[in-house]
Amino acid sequence: MKQKRIADFGIRIGKLPYGKLNKITDVMGVTVGHCTISDEKHNTGVTVILPSEDNVFLNKMTAAVFVHNGFGKTAGTLQIEELGTLETPIALTNTLNVGKVSDALVEYTVRRCKEDGVETASVNPVVGECNDHHVNTITERAVTQNHVFCAIDSACTDFEEGGVGAGTGTKCYGLKGGIGSASRIVSLDGKEYTLGVLVQSNYGKHGDLRIDGKRITEDEHSSRMGVCDAGSIMVILACDIPLTSRQLKRVIKRCSVGIARCGSYIGHGSGEVFIGFSTANRFSSSDTDIVNISCVNENKLDLLFRAAGEATEEAILNSMVCADELHAFNGTLLKSLKDIL
Amino acid sequence: MKQKRIADFGIRIGKLPYGKLNKITDVMGVTVGHCTISDEKHNTGVTVILPSEDNVFLNKMTAAVFVHNGFGKTAGTLQIEELGTLETPIALTNTLNVGKVSDALVEYTVRRCKEDGVETASVNPVVGECNDHHVNTITERAVTQNHVFCAIDSACTDFEEGGVGAGTGTKCYGLKGGIGSASRIVSLDGKEYTLGVLVQSNYGKHGDLRIDGKRITEDEHSSRMGVCDAGSIMVILACDIPLTSRQLKRVIKRCSVGIARCGSYIGHGSGEVFIGFSTANRFSSSDTDIVNISCVNENKLDLLFRAAGEATEEAILNSMVCADELHAFNGTLLKSLKDIL
Amino acid sequence: MKQKRIADFGIRIGKLPYGKLNKITDVMGVTVGHCTISDEKHNTGVTVILPSEDNVFLNKMTAAVFVHNGFGKTAGTLQIEELGTLETPIALTNTLNVGKVSDALVEYTVRRCKEDGVETASVNPVVGECNDHHVNTITERAVTQNHVFCAIDSACTDFEEGGVGAGTGTKCYGLKGGIGSASRIVSLDGKEYTLGVLVQSNYGKHGDLRIDGKRITEDEHSSRMGVCDAGSIMVILACDIPLTSRQLKRVIKRCSVGIARCGSYIGHGSGEVFIGFSTANRFSSSDTDIVNISCVNENKLDLLFRAAGEATEEAILNSMVCADELHAFNGTLLKSLKDIL
Amino acid sequence: MKQKRIADFGIRIGKLPYGKLNKITDVMGVTVGHCTISDEKHNTGVTVILPSEDNVFLNKMTAAVFVHNGFGKTAGTLQIEELGTLETPIALTNTLNVGKVSDALVEYTVRRCKEDGVETASVNPVVGECNDHHVNTITERAVTQNHVFCAIDSACTDFEEGGVGAGTGTKCYGLKGGIGSASRIVSLDGKEYTLGVLVQSNYGKHGDLRIDGKRITEDEHSSRMGVCDAGSIMVILACDIPLTSRQLKRVIKRCSVGIARCGSYIGHGSGEVFIGFSTANRFSSSDTDIVNISCVNENKLDLLFRAAGEATEEAILNSMVCADELHAFNGTLLKSLKDIL
Repeated sequence: MKQKRIADFGIRIGKLPYGKLNKITDVMGVTVGHCTISDEKHNTGVTVILPSEDNVFLNKMTAAVFVHNGFGKTAGTLQIEELGTLETPIALTNTLNVGKVSDALVEYTVRRCKEDGVETASVNPVVGECNDHHVNTITERAVTQNHVFCAIDSACTDFEEGGVGAGTGTKCYGLKGGIGSASRIVSLDGKEYTLGVLVQSNYGKHGDLRIDGKRITEDEHSSRMGVCDAGSIMVILACDIPLTSRQLKRVIKRCSVGIARCGSYIGHGSGEVFIGFSTANRFSSSDTDIVNISCVNENKLDLLFRAAGEATEEAILNSMVCADELHAFNGTLLKSLKDIL
Repeated sequence: MKQKRIADFGIRIGKLPYGKLNKITDVMGVTVGHCTISDEKHNTGVTVILPSEDNVFLNKMTAAVFVHNGFGKTAGTLQIEELGTLETPIALTNTLNVGKVSDALVEYTVRRCKEDGVETASVNPVVGECNDHHVNTITERAVTQNHVFCAIDSACTDFEEGGVGAGTGTKCYGLKGGIGSASRIVSLDGKEYTLGVLVQSNYGKHGDLRIDGKRITEDEHSSRMGVCDAGSIMVILACDIPLTSRQLKRVIKRCSVGIARCGSYIGHGSGEVFIGFSTANRFSSSDTDIVNISCVNENKLDLLFRAAGEATEEAILNSMVCADELHAFNGTLLKSLKDIL
Repeated sequence: MKQKRIADFGIRIGKLPYGKLNKITDVMGVTVGHCTISDEKHNTGVTVILPSEDNVFLNKMTAAVFVHNGFGKTAGTLQIEELGTLETPIALTNTLNVGKVSDALVEYTVRRCKEDGVETASVNPVVGECNDHHVNTITERAVTQNHVFCAIDSACTDFEEGGVGAGTGTKCYGLKGGIGSASRIVSLDGKEYTLGVLVQSNYGKHGDLRIDGKRITEDEHSSRMGVCDAGSIMVILACDIPLTSRQLKRVIKRCSVGIARCGSYIGHGSGEVFIGFSTANRFSSSDTDIVNISCVNENKLDLLFRAAGEATEEAILNSMVCADELHAFNGTLLKSLKDIL
Repeated sequence: MKQKRIADFGIRIGKLPYGKLNKITDVMGVTVGHCTISDEKHNTGVTVILPSEDNVFLNKMTAAVFVHNGFGKTAGTLQIEELGTLETPIALTNTLNVGKVSDALVEYTVRRCKEDGVETASVNPVVGECNDHHVNTITERAVTQNHVFCAIDSACTDFEEGGVGAGTGTKCYGLKGGIGSASRIVSLDGKEYTLGVLVQSNYGKHGDLRIDGKRITEDEHSSRMGVCDAGSIMVILACDIPLTSRQLKRVIKRCSVGIARCGSYIGHGSGEVFIGFSTANRFSSSDTDIVNISCVNENKLDLLFRAAGEATEEAILNSMVCADELHAFNGTLLKSLKDIL
């Protein structure tokens, strides 16, 4: 059954046209898979963003990281910052599971390279996280290598949103958070390009939530819901637009606009990390010494900036409105935005 | 005559209490002065923020810079970033006048130090800028040393807002921009502290403006007004809260929230630079090798983050609503927000 | 038996006085432990730097990171950069083992906190790495949680240097690298303070090595040794000097001087990451809203800068000269510097 | 008369081949001009590096900045960091003259653009500085617009080194510093490329100087010379190699190696700023939305890293050995390295 998304409530975020699915997977080659763990002790999981069908380790992609608030444990940022490239899928999980999931991505990449006849001794796994301890026995680090492989195997374009995968246990503005996505189409030199965003939303204080600028009444829920501004939000941005890593970093920085529009103040305890990649220029070890690439005329970046902000704002709202309310094993109840709208 | 500010229109930004004047000068010791140039060729000027009555060069203040979008010419950021201190007043002016105004701040500081019996051979002037070329013959660099000294001499606590000083020729969301300010009170260990913000607003596309989340109709003005998303916004944040430079940088980063709330997407052409200082810990060359300072418990910063976002959002709106419409020598008309509300 | 160190060869690096052991453990409270894996398929291991006897998670230490060359996988840098604090021991291992070792540090911290009656749901493990694949079957990720716990249990002040722990399989300037350390004493306000450095050395091209500026003949070994400039070097700096995180970052940046003095050009493939902590100011969640700390008068940092450079240069040389030559299972021979001097 | 350079003393720095002049001007199109002020109150001046014969504002060049120690006043870094391009010549001068020289570069660029039929309202002048107050009445800011224009007019390829232009009053390792340069040839895809460096040297403590690793005796001069480790060094790097701004930043970071090899510890008071540009990819406002550029295969950067380190080390030595000793008006004597060797 098709999930009801924020646009289905008649709310239009921004001005730019949507991609076909209005998801990150509108960027050709990108797929997303989940593995959900929901039992009497856990509400957690893993979500994997695969940047391409082929082996990204052998044909690396331009990538960038922007750390909006670094109270977080995201793995793999150092190398992206230095080299401007991505060489593994990106996984999202809970805070204490980053080590195990990183290790699983290493195993996956080593095997994948072996299948392609290449031995590798250096892999930079990229793993983001949110803290779901309020409804998950997080210290047990329930996500294993098998869960990661299962998420990879299940990757598709029309993936589920809401309380699945890495979004199983997240909380957003005091309501149920989760995985959400959106995309925008931009036109350059008369050709259409796609930019998509996926978020793992786990941040914000209940009374602060705004939808397209309008406040959702504070008084109704603030007493029942937690008042802690902690949490986190991971934003993954994909596009098929040729960009240098510096340009891509400028683009993903604008994801912060979407977050602010939803009402938060970038809480101290909220790790907010944005990771972007472009499928346009690929880099291989067999390249010549000088390589030809393309990028966007710097003066035309505004369109991409707007797209990044709009898609992030909508992805956050989709992550909330697609999530069912959650009655956790420990008695915690996280209501759903869809039941409030 | 008292200027009508955004709160006087019945619009309340955020939740935290205002300071006495609801201006940056609510931070004890801080004063602001303008010098306005408005003639048949120019609409420009200079605004100076004096961090203290005494000589800040001799007793430096904790400071920090956050570059939100570096398409700008702000002077003095390198040293603030490295040493975490401010040693001159902060001046704001037009883009091409940064050199002359920097030179004037050097002259001011050398003289001030001589009065205090100190010879100095190294001064780090801090000068921000916005581009007012649409209503100013900017290549003439009309702001001279005398204008800077005049602004310093006129510094006071209850300073004017709107189209004065460095805000004389600025444009914001297609309307008249200018200088605006706001402040918030926060309580730590039962004691009240003040955080204030001053902006020089010169950014945003007309149709994008939002006031407390509500869109100001796009159709009414977008044809008459420029559609360019270029511009700039300088944000100066002052507080009397003891903070390390790292903490202060975290605080001023949250000024971005106020900007996003007003509707922009951080345009490519918009230089957005935030500079913060705290009057709480002072540093002198006669200090002992080990010095005692105080700072905020990291877990209590959320209150300051919220204050920075709220005060910036309100300061931007004040900069617009306090400004009269401007009929420039070259026929350009910049309408005032106050005439639209 | 006492290991012969570079000073025992009559080579004096720099001018500042040594600490008692001339090791990082001269900083009161700091201990170091190794676990070595050396068998028919592996030459690898883990080295742990414990910043204090008490639980550092409950009383966090000022910390800083400087990324000299980010082609590396070090975990935990984001949060140190944002919050300026360290909350776990620091572990060093091989490149592909970072995930597993991070997970082990999480387990260690969760257990340690439980012993102290505290539940924790957020831990930022700090793990550095070098790539030892030339003498280690690195894709097997041989270092397990037990090895990490064993390294922690064995921590002491007079620890071994050379080809042990995380230095078991490293190569430096084409010779055997390893773990090395050194310390310096600085005097502030008439009181003595200690700064110590520990390195995991795995970088540099054979012909480039210099000892106190003198070149070690290139022709003798360059044909036999690898010519690759890849590798990595991790530098851990500890001190008992009160510093802010910003100041500490300035100090650890000077470790680069010691690396350059030894002859390398900061190779593209060489991940060079410096992590520093100070035992002087501790931060607890029960602190008041405003906390008192102390730091060094900025104008007195030169002494610390010199100490950081000297100690790093000497630690690198100690890592090499303390290491025995290594005949690896795959036929690779790494000669020892001590056999050349 | 040809100046005697460090190579003429039989000292060979590094392994890579020199360019034709062994100066930054070996990079095609680059020229350098000086204007020297030497009278009864001043020893100062300005040096200008022109990146091309044509108007760089209209065809911007890839550029990057690395701040090695930010106790300095260099103008123009913000925009280079954000946009990765250079749009004016680069000027070097004394610390307090940055404002005036920036203003002169604005005037120059506005005029130059007018000649080319273009009106410009936004110019990012790039001006570096060293503090020559020990032999210059620096507070008078003797360098005027005319001096800057004179330096531009005198620009040539075989420019003078030592105590000229911005190097007139500088001090290096307690001896006379100045302007120095060097270049290296690197081969990529079988084609030769050139990388050149120019330094303004004004840093280091006398006893610390090393030439190709060998210490210049400390005892002989330390009593007569100042012991202050303050100062500064500006490094300008030019190349004709196609690089992205991110890659170029990695290259110029390696200039730090040359500085460390000469013996300093990156003193607290020493502003050390590196600015690089490449003449290979040019950017114009008339570009299409998507532009084609080229860059170096990331794995082949090591050669450039080595070149940057070698050229910087040699440029520093040339700056010293080409300078005559200086008897300043105030009695200060700065001896020349050439009289010591």
